[in-house]
Amino acid sequence: MGVVMGSDSDFTVMSAAVQVLRDFGVPCEVQVVSAHRTPHKMISYGASAQERGLKVIIAGAGGAAHLPGMLASVTTLPVVGVPVPLGLLDGMDSLLSIVQMPAGVPVATVSIGGARNAGLIAVKILATSDDSLRLKLEAYSAELGVQAEQKNRDLQARL
Amino acid sequence: MGVVMGSDSDFTVMSAAVQVLRDFGVPCEVQVVSAHRTPHKMISYGASAQERGLKVIIAGAGGAAHLPGMLASVTTLPVVGVPVPLGLLDGMDSLLSIVQMPAGVPVATVSIGGARNAGLIAVKILATSDDSLRLKLEAYSAELGVQAEQKNRDLQARL
Amino acid sequence: MGVVMGSDSDFTVMSAAVQVLRDFGVPCEVQVVSAHRTPHKMISYGASAQERGLKVIIAGAGGAAHLPGMLASVTTLPVVGVPVPLGLLDGMDSLLSIVQMPAGVPVATVSIGGARNAGLIAVKILATSDDSLRLKLEAYSAELGVQAEQKNRDLQARL
Amino acid sequence: MGVVMGSDSDFTVMSAAVQVLRDFGVPCEVQVVSAHRTPHKMISYGASAQERGLKVIIAGAGGAAHLPGMLASVTTLPVVGVPVPLGLLDGMDSLLSIVQMPAGVPVATVSIGGARNAGLIAVKILATSDDSLRLKLEAYSAELGVQAEQKNRDLQARL
Amino acid sequence: MGVVMGSDSDFTVMSAAVQVLRDFGVPCEVQVVSAHRTPHKMISYGASAQERGLKVIIAGAGGAAHLPGMLASVTTLPVVGVPVPLGLLDGMDSLLSIVQMPAGVPVATVSIGGARNAGLIAVKILATSDDSLRLKLEAYSAELGVQAEQKNRDLQARL
Amino acid sequence: MGVVMGSDSDFTVMSAAVQVLRDFGVPCEVQVVSAHRTPHKMISYGASAQERGLKVIIAGAGGAAHLPGMLASVTTLPVVGVPVPLGLLDGMDSLLSIVQMPAGVPVATVSIGGARNAGLIAVKILATSDDSLRLKLEAYSAELGVQAEQKNRDLQARL
Amino acid sequence: MGVVMGSDSDFTVMSAAVQVLRDFGVPCEVQVVSAHRTPHKMISYGASAQERGLKVIIAGAGGAAHLPGMLASVTTLPVVGVPVPLGLLDGMDSLLSIVQMPAGVPVATVSIGGARNAGLIAVKILATSDDSLRLKLEAYSAELGVQAEQKNRDLQARL
Amino acid sequence: MGVVMGSDSDFTVMSAAVQVLRDFGVPCEVQVVSAHRTPHKMISYGASAQERGLKVIIAGAGGAAHLPGMLASVTTLPVVGVPVPLGLLDGMDSLLSIVQMPAGVPVATVSIGGARNAGLIAVKILATSDDSLRLKLEAYSAELGVQAEQKNRDLQARL
Repeated sequence: MGVVMGSDSDFTVMSAAVQVLRDFGVPCEVQVVSAHRTPHKMISYGASAQERGLKVIIAGAGGAAHLPGMLASVTTLPVVGVPVPLGLLDGMDSLLSIVQMPAGVPVATVSIGGARNAGLIAVKILATSDDSLRLKLEAYSAELGVQAEQKNRDLQARL
Repeated sequence: MGVVMGSDSDFTVMSAAVQVLRDFGVPCEVQVVSAHRTPHKMISYGASAQERGLKVIIAGAGGAAHLPGMLASVTTLPVVGVPVPLGLLDGMDSLLSIVQMPAGVPVATVSIGGARNAGLIAVKILATSDDSLRLKLEAYSAELGVQAEQKNRDLQARL
Repeated sequence: MGVVMGSDSDFTVMSAAVQVLRDFGVPCEVQVVSAHRTPHKMISYGASAQERGLKVIIAGAGGAAHLPGMLASVTTLPVVGVPVPLGLLDGMDSLLSIVQMPAGVPVATVSIGGARNAGLIAVKILATSDDSLRLKLEAYSAELGVQAEQKNRDLQARL
Repeated sequence: MGVVMGSDSDFTVMSAAVQVLRDFGVPCEVQVVSAHRTPHKMISYGASAQERGLKVIIAGAGGAAHLPGMLASVTTLPVVGVPVPLGLLDGMDSLLSIVQMPAGVPVATVSIGGARNAGLIAVKILATSDDSLRLKLEAYSAELGVQAEQKNRDLQARL
Repeated sequence: MGVVMGSDSDFTVMSAAVQVLRDFGVPCEVQVVSAHRTPHKMISYGASAQERGLKVIIAGAGGAAHLPGMLASVTTLPVVGVPVPLGLLDGMDSLLSIVQMPAGVPVATVSIGGARNAGLIAVKILATSDDSLRLKLEAYSAELGVQAEQKNRDLQARL
Repeated sequence: MGVVMGSDSDFTVMSAAVQVLRDFGVPCEVQVVSAHRTPHKMISYGASAQERGLKVIIAGAGGAAHLPGMLASVTTLPVVGVPVPLGLLDGMDSLLSIVQMPAGVPVATVSIGGARNAGLIAVKILATSDDSLRLKLEAYSAELGVQAEQKNRDLQARL
Repeated sequence: MGVVMGSDSDFTVMSAAVQVLRDFGVPCEVQVVSAHRTPHKMISYGASAQERGLKVIIAGAGGAAHLPGMLASVTTLPVVGVPVPLGLLDGMDSLLSIVQMPAGVPVATVSIGGARNAGLIAVKILATSDDSLRLKLEAYSAELGVQAEQKNRDLQARL
Repeated sequence: MGVVMGSDSDFTVMSAAVQVLRDFGVPCEVQVVSAHRTPHKMISYGASAQERGLKVIIAGAGGAAHLPGMLASVTTLPVVGVPVPLGLLDGMDSLLSIVQMPAGVPVATVSIGGARNAGLIAVKILATSDDSLRLKLEAYSAELGVQAEQKNRDLQARL
């Protein structure tokens, strides 16, 4: 699994993806790969990803966020895109720059700032051919329900 | 592979996903499953999808588009969401209703009306554990480049 | 009366609905019911609401806010939806996810963060068959006018 | 039940509310009442609505849509607002003008152009104290499911 | 001149209009007049404005901002509307609720939070029949230029 | 009265302002004055407007609509701005370019495409010092009410 | 001068840039270069542009429009970006994808669909070191004024 | 090179343009030139820019940002526009006011608040006829890549 981002400042958001992968025991490499500042590295990163053994690429970027889409153009691996919100426009520019890809070159986009969900999509993808991961996802999903119930009890106590 | 949509009128958009799956030789079932009109069927569709052998669910919906997210809440399978544009707002309501999912329950969202790309994401997911599909994706990607070059030649001829 | 929300963090907003109901002497239950984390509970909550004696459901949620619409799909009770603003987009995603429901499955939507008004709509609904509540609403409305006049006098004093 | 709209041109949209009420056997009066062109009539319409025996007011308007909110300011009846889309902005101005009411004076807002749903909310409100209407709503809801299933079968036939 | 606002909290914005009027020596009354909390007062305020000797009404409101438009519906005086930004949406809802008035009932709208400019429009209106005000406006305009030049010199000093 | 527009294609929208002025017997000159194509003429048009006897300037423009604001910068006359919708963005760019003027240089803005209302604001401004115009405005306002009532009767006949 | 676009369908918009360049006698090459379908060609196109003698690159693209920004990342030449509107969102996604570039890698962006202006910026750039082009620009600018005056006369004739 | 802005408060944003020009050794003058407060100075600034030896004008403004477009209307020099974000709307009004210029009068627009990139576009323009600047740009571009790599190493150290 590869987790890449356009700038190290994006790591505040993107660390949640790394955390999810670690929680599920999925090994990952993490890189700053800038579509605009290191375009040649970006192209070679994407083009070599499959043969280096990556299964999914998670890419986060802000503003005119080209990194996820450009990686998707040079690999057959699924690319999951995370719109990173910057100081203005609440990430709407990032979202549109990532999700509105042309026919033929998809990016699986998550919510603005939704790096945790990007990690989960990557796990879900691996789980389509890995039953142990699937079981972990079922446990994770059940745990979400348990937490919601606990929140409900906490709320009852506050009323 | 399951392709579902909230209404048969969405099939105008969603047929592109079905077509891609057929082009790649991926069997799929196609269903009208409405989150709002057949909620119980929707829940059971999602909850049983994995054991019925589905690997990925592609779900399209318009307006307050809840189908992809609700399916994602009851399955560990990856869910790919297609915002279907209706007559007003150009699908911006559909996009936000699908992509802005809370942490823990992701939907892999494509562009507004981007059913073809939803199909391709599904194929890419399967290809992470299926080398023959991966090779087809490489051929598909190469073909996109060939077509772009042909378009370039056509354009030169028009100048 | 049932007041539900997707997360206990929504209670900061939703408590205003509870307060209004208490001010009008309308008994209510308050629950964390997450469309995405506890979908089965959510469905059964909505499906059983009428027979458990609820008259109206007030549901608040943020982001891809599916809770109000999904509850509306499994009950004949009126559902009042409150778009809860999260950290980004000022609740525009919540608003569109709640208000843009398809024909047949309505949600009575209030302003972004407008939980107080959701409570008032619920009271107004009950008052259509409860004259004592109607009289309280008239008194409430008159009190709003009195407060506005007091604000006017305060303003005059500041000039 | 009162159904009002700012202009007769709004009836193209608002007729769906009238149709729903008729389908459920709910008597209604239909009026052109303009907040801006007949403000005094509008005020007296709202102020007298309760004593004239109305239970709910459905109000549709476009652009700077003030009719629903102004009616809500002079009656304790529930007011259901329908944002009517005009030629520009796809009704986003109407939606915000109707839904963003201040605390104390709510309007139960439906989707842009969603007059059918406005009628259904009115029926749901009446059904909170009318079991025969509730049963009709259950039948209506079941019928929606049946139609969705029929659409599914139609789709299967087309594949 | 009348300056009205929906709530005393709007005075933080609206005081700039009052200040401009005072700077130009234009007498004004300032009132909290709420379209939604004191609708009858609002109607009578607007309907009697001309005979009470007002020449222009400046009205500020936030959210579903109906005050300027409703006043415009009951007076032949020019109404200047000020969209007041509240905590969410940056006043875009206020702006659309004020500016998008239907044909026949105009509101002269200024920028979001632009109460100073509302006062200036009022002065400009009076100046169409008052040469002394016109001369003051010319002096004011010249002073704007002087200030801009001083800012330029300040900037030069900082470089 | 001066009515100006950036291009003759804007006359489709702006003719409604001219018509209103004619209906009220207000003489007006109509000009194509482009802020961007004839900037010097635009400046001199605005700077000389008052001494040429104009009382109000109505200016319409689309896209990056600078004409109303630039005229306002060189005259003490009230400037009424009309956002003209072009083929894209439904005039939202025009609206923001016109209404969001800085403190000190106001433009009285009407709705997108609202040239009729621009004409009416101009008439209202003149009527502040012209009782015969004020009486015509009262008759116009009454006529709006009569038309609304006629529309109501037409609607009753259709039901 | 290089004029590139992501698809031959963009030529409907981009031909206006070619026309302007021809009108000014500036030689140009025109290419379909897709960031997503031919990424390697795109990179080499940009990287070699300067040494092939290009002075400016004009790039148009729609949706998640990455072409202008990616070219800017591999060349020191000025890149002028044209947001091409597709069927939905009126090109707002294209605009944000092009204009919101990060610090260090600028794209000189024109209006949505504004290919003519992209051509003019390119000419203006060349004219900074080419007096004959500058004179042509002055003539062009004067001609714009003449046309506006002719439009004014045409309008006078229609009144 | 001329760097101008509508107010000295814009210098917080615009100083980044000045810094870039200094870093590249490009002499520049910096001025407060307000389209709305000093329109005649603005016109003469633009009209005389070319003969005073300027090659490019960088202009920043907020809200209804007319400065870049108006300067473009009176000079054949390339004008680079910087949308300055003010307290509301995140600069979307500034962006649209600057970028949506009509055919014939282009402004080369950068991102909201993107003054650094405006400076770089200006340098790139000069570099089209200045090889030493072009080499500096190549070094700058390489340095961006080096910094991105350093950020990558920093990130690796944090993991």
